[in-house]
Amino acid sequence: MAPSRIRSVALQSKIMSAEDAAALIPANSTVGMSGFTGSGYPKAIAPALAARIEAEHARGAPFRLKVWTGASTGPELDGALARADGIEFRLPYNSDPIAREKINKGEMEYLDMHLSQVAPMAWQGFLGPLETAVIEVAGIREDGSLIPSSSVGNNKTWLDRADQVILEVNSWQNEALEGMHDIYYGTALPPDRVPIPLIRSDDRIGQPTFRCDPAKVVAVVETHSPDRNAPFDPPNDAARAIAGHLLEFLSHEVKVGRLPASLLPLQSGVGNIANAVLTGLVDAPFENLTAFTEVIQDGMLDLLDSDKLRVASATAFSLSPDAAADLNARMSEFRNRIILRPQEISNHPELIRRLGCIAMNGLIEADIYGNVNSTHIMGSRIQNGIGGSGDFARNAFISVFMTPSTAKGGRISAIVPHASHVDHITQDVQVLVTEQGLADLRGLSPKQRARVIIPNCAHPDYRDQLQDYYDRALKGSYGLQSPTLLNEALSWHQRFVETGTMRL
Amino acid sequence: MAPSRIRSVALQSKIMSAEDAAALIPANSTVGMSGFTGSGYPKAIAPALAARIEAEHARGAPFRLKVWTGASTGPELDGALARADGIEFRLPYNSDPIAREKINKGEMEYLDMHLSQVAPMAWQGFLGPLETAVIEVAGIREDGSLIPSSSVGNNKTWLDRADQVILEVNSWQNEALEGMHDIYYGTALPPDRVPIPLIRSDDRIGQPTFRCDPAKVVAVVETHSPDRNAPFDPPNDAARAIAGHLLEFLSHEVKVGRLPASLLPLQSGVGNIANAVLTGLVDAPFENLTAFTEVIQDGMLDLLDSDKLRVASATAFSLSPDAAADLNARMSEFRNRIILRPQEISNHPELIRRLGCIAMNGLIEADIYGNVNSTHIMGSRIQNGIGGSGDFARNAFISVFMTPSTAKGGRISAIVPHASHVDHITQDVQVLVTEQGLADLRGLSPKQRARVIIPNCAHPDYRDQLQDYYDRALKGSYGLQSPTLLNEALSWHQRFVETGTMRL
Repeated sequence: MAPSRIRSVALQSKIMSAEDAAALIPANSTVGMSGFTGSGYPKAIAPALAARIEAEHARGAPFRLKVWTGASTGPELDGALARADGIEFRLPYNSDPIAREKINKGEMEYLDMHLSQVAPMAWQGFLGPLETAVIEVAGIREDGSLIPSSSVGNNKTWLDRADQVILEVNSWQNEALEGMHDIYYGTALPPDRVPIPLIRSDDRIGQPTFRCDPAKVVAVVETHSPDRNAPFDPPNDAARAIAGHLLEFLSHEVKVGRLPASLLPLQSGVGNIANAVLTGLVDAPFENLTAFTEVIQDGMLDLLDSDKLRVASATAFSLSPDAAADLNARMSEFRNRIILRPQEISNHPELIRRLGCIAMNGLIEADIYGNVNSTHIMGSRIQNGIGGSGDFARNAFISVFMTPSTAKGGRISAIVPHASHVDHITQDVQVLVTEQGLADLRGLSPKQRARVIIPNCAHPDYRDQLQDYYDRALKGSYGLQSPTLLNEALSWHQRFVETGTMRL
Repeated sequence: MAPSRIRSVALQSKIMSAEDAAALIPANSTVGMSGFTGSGYPKAIAPALAARIEAEHARGAPFRLKVWTGASTGPELDGALARADGIEFRLPYNSDPIAREKINKGEMEYLDMHLSQVAPMAWQGFLGPLETAVIEVAGIREDGSLIPSSSVGNNKTWLDRADQVILEVNSWQNEALEGMHDIYYGTALPPDRVPIPLIRSDDRIGQPTFRCDPAKVVAVVETHSPDRNAPFDPPNDAARAIAGHLLEFLSHEVKVGRLPASLLPLQSGVGNIANAVLTGLVDAPFENLTAFTEVIQDGMLDLLDSDKLRVASATAFSLSPDAAADLNARMSEFRNRIILRPQEISNHPELIRRLGCIAMNGLIEADIYGNVNSTHIMGSRIQNGIGGSGDFARNAFISVFMTPSTAKGGRISAIVPHASHVDHITQDVQVLVTEQGLADLRGLSPKQRARVIIPNCAHPDYRDQLQDYYDRALKGSYGLQSPTLLNEALSWHQRFVETGTMRL
């Protein structure tokens, strides 16, 4: 393969195999990898590294890494390294099933972080040194600057912060990505921080490439591999119902003058419900929309295509194979309407509050007062992580959480008496939506919230059970600000663990 | 009394008694009152209003108000109105014991809000209309602009947003307050928000007075009454030990280069522990300190006096009678080193993250993973409210929470297996301090956190009990990211409710 993507002559001399590159990573060190929601992660070096780790383990040598990323990666990275028992400590987000299993067995430490805070905290120093950055790029320019790939994540920070850099140049990524990115170099540690000069979702405040000191680059590896693009299930009835309730609410807010006709910048979590909302917006009466979000998924491309969405700012793509192929075929058309930024900017509280995002995120469970658990099944078992939901929910103009009202074939109620873990406190949960209906919680006290959440959002199979709990809590609680029966609060979860259902 | 504080001729004609002014407030309407941590609240109108409400109730007429403030007020306001059963709904913070009792009996609805969000949410509209603003000021200038009092809070917003305005001109407040305040008029609703141009704690970005449309002023009442200045208990051994641990930690952070020698802008909650920390800083080896905080309390004045603290930015005073007298006597000396701002600015996430505050707040309980409950005793009974702790903790450079390790004579452990209510999630709790010691939780996974919190922070009387819970949770939990025994998690609280102690 001609090294046409590697236009820097100096860095051409660093081209080597993935195995040789993996051999340069010190045992038991910290590696900062690229990758965000299954896009732009290194695809050749991680498996080679996993093979090396397995070989080291086979001869009795310890070899476990601290692995930092943008967010989730793919099976070639988290899956392979976790299977090799090669990850001692992982941050800030994981969705890989093998890694998840290791974490929940207590065999791997996992630090679940607000995604906006990863880069600044890496600079603060308490996370420790970063020996190696392993970054997928779409190309290397003549001057050694790097053309970012399909995600930006924390790559800028890993490149700047690491002692050594390994680059993976992935020719599967579209060359026309060049120019889509906006890499802001104005961040600093306090007391040197200044206002971030972004006032519209489509402002460009940085440069299209990463700076990279060529002296730190110890290896360049060429690959040609697709991102972990997984097909989306088509929206089911529940997802369509949730989208319908939410779009009706947004229309009402426009009608009463609490939202502009073009809404405000949309933030949308990943998944089928989010996708159903985005798809629903194609036919909704809003024009000239913008998105200031973490991830561009299929529905966002559809919205761009429909011209309802003018521009989308994010830090990564997360597409189905079909949408990825479509994007690749029409990259030059989309390039000026999509901006990918570092996650410290895409998720920055300053910008989210300034822009006034409409945040739409999923959840595992919400309680009758609107405390939301986004991460821990039955209070202890991590699913993925908080991701950017905390960055967005607390600073949004309207913070929406949505979920089907039940899971596991109805055996789990998404509305419970007491959240078994809390990621989003009641103050940060303003609208709750299930296929049953929508609860507008803004301006309501906890008891007022319970009185709309139970009838509007709970599944009929659980509604009476919740109402009964609440009625008895009103009589038996220690205090009546947020009535709670301490010896029953977590009994639904305990019942699920013991019997396989929350049903009585 | 000569109306020397009321220099606007037009508004002199509106002078009337508190009773006449109170009669102008519509029954069952919403009133936006001034007041923050017991300072700058209206002192004459609220009691007159309470008397009117009692009279109305005596003749069988309904009269209950929605009361919005900056934060806590005084007995003449929350106490008098609550006693008269005159408050239907209260936001965003309360520390009055009578109102607290009503809330916890379910006789008054209470919406506990992030203090930075009150003003923007009032503008969003979903909180409903605001019929009347009742604002204490230190004086009225010739042009009708208002000289703020000892707190700023949400006064700017109430004055702009209310249909009618009642002013209480309190000649007890020092005239030399004029010029201390910095009222920023650059806020807006999205999509019109712009960067807030503050990059140092002592930047002045606004004007010293409130604008006020004289046509909206329906009454001016003259008073001469002190703020609710309560004496501080002198720091006890526990407070001094906590301060010692924290100052040692800060010194260490400076030594290893993770903090500048002048630290970063300090935010300090109110109370004896916070005061002990501030007092401790007088003798600590840090110079040229700054504060970007909510409230100026005694210790902050001592620090200013010592010249260790260069400048303090806040939204209110909360002083002991002695300190208030001292401040009043030396106001012109302090005026250029203290800046009082609207709480939407003093607590703004954009500014807190930019400045990189060191946030120091109290708590009710923390669990072994570092989830913090700041508001609900035994999960249900409101104490005060979240106040600004969420604004600061999530955006701070270092977020510290501190508490004695036990309460109620040792019958309550401040460290529990599972927080009975969560206000601050683990991500936002970086350093936990009790008189037993300090746990630096930065960069640690939940299990790693438990392994430092239990030995470092728990009281010896509860340490084994916590360790036993944790050890058994490691064996019996559904998942091992945050090991939890669902049927025991809240048993300590239940035991306290049943037996009066968390001890076994």
